Amino acid sequence: MEKAVFYHAGCPVCVNAEQDILKIIDRSKYDPEVVHLGQDPTRIPEAEVVGVESVPALWLNQNVLHINFGASLTDVKNG
Amino acid sequence: MEKAVFYHAGCPVCVNAEQDILKIIDRSKYDPEVVHLGQDPTRIPEAEVVGVESVPALWLNQNVLHINFGASLTDVKNG
Repeated sequence: MEKAVFYHAGCPVCVNAEQDILKIIDRSKYDPEVVHLGQDPTRIPEAEVVGVESVPALWLNQNVLHINFGASLTDVKNG
Repeated sequence: MEKAVFYHAGCPVCVNAEQDILKIIDRSKYDPEVVHLGQDPTRIPEAEVVGVESVPALWLNQNVLHINFGASLTDVKNG
């Protein structure tokens, strides 16, 4: 199983994107984790390290797909 | 099978996103079509009607996921 992490911050754009991504992702190959950076800000540094610049974003082994444009990580940090 | 259409315009951002999307998408549920709007500009009006505002974008039955930000449809039209 490959890892996939969906980072979001609870915004409406994020929630819609989360539903779509979790619906299309092939569960036979991926084990998706959903991280709510608003509720779990301890994961923000990790998100920055892997290349997440805005949420919602989907991290797939090395690559980050930024989906729509919800909020920058700076906005998430500033609450 | 549900329909999924990935609209792009051949830019490097688009190509990377295409590879990722085609890799994660569950082929048991979706039959993805890839449309290169630069090579097939006759599909641009359709893309606009379904809500595509920039490429790369993934259209999934009613919803459009805009991925990263490659180019606006205006840029694609203006070649």
